[in-house]
Amino acid sequence: MRLKNKERLKRFTIFFSEEELNIPKGNKDIYISKTVFSKTSTLKNQRGKNEMWILAPISAIASIIAGGILYNYVSKQDSGTEKMKEIAAAIKEGADAFLKREYMVLAYFVAVVAVALAIFINPIMAPTYIFGSVCSGLAGFFGMQVALKANVRTANAAREGLNRAFPIAFRGGAVMGLSVVGMGLLGISIVYGLTGNPEIILGYSFGASAMALFAKAGGGIYTKTADIGADLVGKVELGIPEDDPRNPAVIADNVGDNVGDVAGMGADLFDSYVASVVAAMILGGELEMAELLGTEQIPLIFAGLGVIASLIGVAVVRVGKKGNPGKALNFGTYFTCIVFTALTFLVTYLLEINIGIWIAANIGLLSGVIIGITTDYFTSIDRSPTIKTAESSQTGAAINIITGFSYGLISLFPPLLGIGIASTTAYYVAEYFGISGLYGISMAALGMLSIVGMIVAGDAYGPISDNAKGIAEQASLSEKVIEVADRLDAAGNTSKAITKGFAIGAAGLTVISLLATFQVLTKAVSFDLMNPLVLTGALIGISVPPLFSAMVMLGVSKNAFRMIEEIRRQFREIPGLKEGKEGVKPDYARCVDIATTGALKELLPASVVSIMITLAVGFIGGIQALGGFLGGSIMSGLIFALLMANAGGLWDNAKKYIEAGAFGGKGSDAHKAAVIGDTVGDPFKDTAGPSLNTLITVMSLVASVFAGLIANYNLMTLLGV
Amino acid sequence: MRLKNKERLKRFTIFFSEEELNIPKGNKDIYISKTVFSKTSTLKNQRGKNEMWILAPISAIASIIAGGILYNYVSKQDSGTEKMKEIAAAIKEGADAFLKREYMVLAYFVAVVAVALAIFINPIMAPTYIFGSVCSGLAGFFGMQVALKANVRTANAAREGLNRAFPIAFRGGAVMGLSVVGMGLLGISIVYGLTGNPEIILGYSFGASAMALFAKAGGGIYTKTADIGADLVGKVELGIPEDDPRNPAVIADNVGDNVGDVAGMGADLFDSYVASVVAAMILGGELEMAELLGTEQIPLIFAGLGVIASLIGVAVVRVGKKGNPGKALNFGTYFTCIVFTALTFLVTYLLEINIGIWIAANIGLLSGVIIGITTDYFTSIDRSPTIKTAESSQTGAAINIITGFSYGLISLFPPLLGIGIASTTAYYVAEYFGISGLYGISMAALGMLSIVGMIVAGDAYGPISDNAKGIAEQASLSEKVIEVADRLDAAGNTSKAITKGFAIGAAGLTVISLLATFQVLTKAVSFDLMNPLVLTGALIGISVPPLFSAMVMLGVSKNAFRMIEEIRRQFREIPGLKEGKEGVKPDYARCVDIATTGALKELLPASVVSIMITLAVGFIGGIQALGGFLGGSIMSGLIFALLMANAGGLWDNAKKYIEAGAFGGKGSDAHKAAVIGDTVGDPFKDTAGPSLNTLITVMSLVASVFAGLIANYNLMTLLGV
Repeated sequence: MRLKNKERLKRFTIFFSEEELNIPKGNKDIYISKTVFSKTSTLKNQRGKNEMWILAPISAIASIIAGGILYNYVSKQDSGTEKMKEIAAAIKEGADAFLKREYMVLAYFVAVVAVALAIFINPIMAPTYIFGSVCSGLAGFFGMQVALKANVRTANAAREGLNRAFPIAFRGGAVMGLSVVGMGLLGISIVYGLTGNPEIILGYSFGASAMALFAKAGGGIYTKTADIGADLVGKVELGIPEDDPRNPAVIADNVGDNVGDVAGMGADLFDSYVASVVAAMILGGELEMAELLGTEQIPLIFAGLGVIASLIGVAVVRVGKKGNPGKALNFGTYFTCIVFTALTFLVTYLLEINIGIWIAANIGLLSGVIIGITTDYFTSIDRSPTIKTAESSQTGAAINIITGFSYGLISLFPPLLGIGIASTTAYYVAEYFGISGLYGISMAALGMLSIVGMIVAGDAYGPISDNAKGIAEQASLSEKVIEVADRLDAAGNTSKAITKGFAIGAAGLTVISLLATFQVLTKAVSFDLMNPLVLTGALIGISVPPLFSAMVMLGVSKNAFRMIEEIRRQFREIPGLKEGKEGVKPDYARCVDIATTGALKELLPASVVSIMITLAVGFIGGIQALGGFLGGSIMSGLIFALLMANAGGLWDNAKKYIEAGAFGGKGSDAHKAAVIGDTVGDPFKDTAGPSLNTLITVMSLVASVFAGLIANYNLMTLLGV
Repeated sequence: MRLKNKERLKRFTIFFSEEELNIPKGNKDIYISKTVFSKTSTLKNQRGKNEMWILAPISAIASIIAGGILYNYVSKQDSGTEKMKEIAAAIKEGADAFLKREYMVLAYFVAVVAVALAIFINPIMAPTYIFGSVCSGLAGFFGMQVALKANVRTANAAREGLNRAFPIAFRGGAVMGLSVVGMGLLGISIVYGLTGNPEIILGYSFGASAMALFAKAGGGIYTKTADIGADLVGKVELGIPEDDPRNPAVIADNVGDNVGDVAGMGADLFDSYVASVVAAMILGGELEMAELLGTEQIPLIFAGLGVIASLIGVAVVRVGKKGNPGKALNFGTYFTCIVFTALTFLVTYLLEINIGIWIAANIGLLSGVIIGITTDYFTSIDRSPTIKTAESSQTGAAINIITGFSYGLISLFPPLLGIGIASTTAYYVAEYFGISGLYGISMAALGMLSIVGMIVAGDAYGPISDNAKGIAEQASLSEKVIEVADRLDAAGNTSKAITKGFAIGAAGLTVISLLATFQVLTKAVSFDLMNPLVLTGALIGISVPPLFSAMVMLGVSKNAFRMIEEIRRQFREIPGLKEGKEGVKPDYARCVDIATTGALKELLPASVVSIMITLAVGFIGGIQALGGFLGGSIMSGLIFALLMANAGGLWDNAKKYIEAGAFGGKGSDAHKAAVIGDTVGDPFKDTAGPSLNTLITVMSLVASVFAGLIANYNLMTLLGV
């Protein structure tokens, strides 16, 4: 049984002096009592604390050092011909310019939020929030810098064969992966070391997530604006190949791969990762486990072991001369999982950690793999859903879209079932071993995300090799080189499907444990669906992820409209461009500028609206409504994240299947239909879909950060409901 | 405070002998106690019963008689030229054949379920279940018969002007509306009169809903198979007008309007209507309102008043020579609302009914109107979402689809917020006046659905006038006649938007009150989102409506594929058909047969799978998992019902906007893009979307009917979780 507030307070003031408890003055009763509890639980834990959590910062630093070494390796490679260097420089220029302008816009936002946090919540929240934003931004920035180096070097090395090019692309991705986990875990460790209070780390997590949301939304709008524009005018209207240097949007398209897929994705997994660690720490510290020692630190220990497992995993990935890069990537993922399982078992044994915690974490990891594999089925190019969608393209674009959308809908079932079974099993296993079930769920989420270093490495490999292929084409390298680049690129798609399922599954479990954190922080007894406030909250909550998706997709479609007009104009007005006359170059910079300006304009509204609705529901409906709201937003967030990712991937592969020669091949009516499907899928899978994980994380964190304030000041309490 | 089971039993056995309670023998403890309670509450109510419920069967019979009179009126009209009669006969033949074959397939299903109910639940459930199925089927059948008469007569009357044609189309629809509410309410009254037990009426409701689900799914697949096939080959490939008699699928298309839109839609609202009345009766009888007299009968009284209001509403709808039929339909709806409010107030006053009940019911009605109006904004042809979608068609089909889909996503927000506010307000108003809040929500649902007679009348008007237009074109009537038919048709679309929002809002509130019913029947204390079983149930629940949608849409796309092949074959192989040579006729029957066979094949799987998953979740996860499952399925059912209805309507109108001359008009590239969007929207808005209301109702009813059995026999209980 948990003690009532006052009893707990009394109990701990016996052990600690008031000074030691450092009770702040003011009239925000609930917040005060919350702080007191955290403080007391921290003090308590200091007496029974598991000091081994120092493993977390140590492995984080090791990870950052390893990232530095790999960065050096990539930098040392040759970046090829003058032409290639020129293209790479143009891409880098566009990407840097976008990121610089994006971060300047966000600096204002961060400043405003920091001031609000300092005033309404707690002065210490402001610097931790800023710290989280900066770390998240830096992880994205570093990752992108190395990707911009790796792409051209991969293209150049492709001239010497696959086994020369692959390590450059992969290690480029690994720098990103290692810096994400390194920065994330180091940041958490610093805040925890200084404050000893996991609730303060919520501020860090909030900073990281808000930044990630903007990075995802902004980068996603940028990349698809350029991609759709380039494809629709270039490929569809004029019939010139992808990445043709005559296309005015081709540089913008390549920039987009970096600011959207690399920087955005890095920030995205950074935020899930941090949130899962924080949630588990808070639940470990607050739930009914006072008698267990160190449950607050165990998440840090396990996360540290995950980083070590990822380091080992990254080290073993290699491919022979005739090797299969896709298999090598998947092998790396599986190997990392096994190392994690072994390491955590060893530590659990040595530190005498409750075995239930180990099982829960590994249930999470296992279900992550299973979810990844089933997701793969629905998007894989050689499986029935993709082939049937390709086949249906013969009767036109409409049937292609209906078919692909339908398979996307079906694809929801296995992962949602998987998340459900994983959380139930983790819950009951934990309870069976005498630990709180909710802590079990949070450890499952952490287990799933523990190998995120490896996941990001494989994920970032994708856009790097995609870019390498683009550069090879623009620099007119030989057919053979382009073929090598193509094989590298295809391997990226294979591993991407598995890691994407992983990422969504992990986000699902993470937000569930964030909901548990919210419940613990607000001391709500339950979120009962039959309570009308919970129900109404849920009904509003389910409509927010669709609203957010719509706003960013409309941003893409508005922006693409402008981009298309510009590309058409250039082809019309620049003489000799269409014919590819020697020396005639399109105005790349103009297209880069359109993508940048548009993305920055559309970046804020969707995210700010979502945060505002969260606060509005809280301050009007109170804690119960907000709990229902979070529950509802998790439900529909998962639905649309999965639907959009899978339908988008499926349409993409259906098009590729036809391009490989089926149903009439390239240029046939079926192909034209499939291209339309693919274009619809673009903002689904690269703009709206991947932002949703982050969105629901941000909403959960906003709720938790403002929980104390909302509990005291909300309309329902004022009305006495 | 509710009494504990044993205390209640003891308390009532003091008043009634064991014989009077008629306790059945057997070992199904929970079921027995449930029956005893119902019996006792019934006996109790007989002493304080509100005998005025007799109003329900009386108004139901009045409604059926009025329907008969209008049927007579429609039949007496002239059905025009020989050519018109011939076309009408062909449509009737196809429609009758489909319905006959569909009902034969369903007879087996009904028989199997009836046997299962008799064995596992209660012998009396079997005949009530069959009775519900038959009534639902009959309502659809009657409605379709009159629609088949009204369409050709409307076309003929259009030759004499709008004000001659309008009443035929509207009264044809009114027969449908009046027979739906008449049959529904009469059926409930009969079962209630015979058994005095609202829980038995659940069997009636289950029969009606299961039948509705099949009718919707089957009819929806049929109609879109024919529609897409006819459009893609006729309009897009060959450029011949819609409803051109050369098109081999034109008769199948017209048949589809009747079996899908008329028969299916009638069955659909029949099921929501019955479910809302039953849910309110059970909640009225079982919840903490023993001290209030007659709360079990009040839903019947209010429903009866709703029927009377609809009768008056139908009577006042008329249009002058220069009148606007759209306005006339909307006026009828609003007028019916006002009459309902006034009548219920009067009766509340006279019978001294708690005023909270009246307020709750009218909150439901009011929010239905508001939801309808906001929904209208997103699909209306002269509003920004439609115009922007039309505009985006200029950059191709993909952008058209992304834009329309995005506005569809945004359109979820107002109605979901509306349903939330309506249920919260109804809950707290009821509580304020000392009544159970859940009963308040169920009365709000009933209030929203009370005027369903009028709603169906307006809804069925749509396909009748659509068919009339088709017949006018095929029979080569003059331009002027077709223009009149066109205006009638357009009015149908205006009123349809409002009534569709109404229908989804009403279904939302109804399933919420069914969830409350399920809770009351299972005596579950709560469905707490933080309970892992509830959570897992919810995660599975949210994936079922998408799965169902996908299965029926794939059914459409598979079937349309076959249809398209057949139409292309006929144009290829029948000499002179394409050129429209005198005397050359396509093989209509072959297309009708393809649509029929395909629809029957795809009809069962999706529905049966959904019912099976519901039972599987119950028997594996128990009551808590099932509660979460229902909650989740309601959430995602509402999301997809609204998204598909609104995006579909929006694409349709964007196409019409371009056809009216904007952005290049008919035949332009923008138009071609918009046609693709419209085709994607077809199965959204006419197959999957409208089935989802029914699906979640059926799932809720399955859960409630099997609640007793599941509570006793489920894996979790066996495992001792």
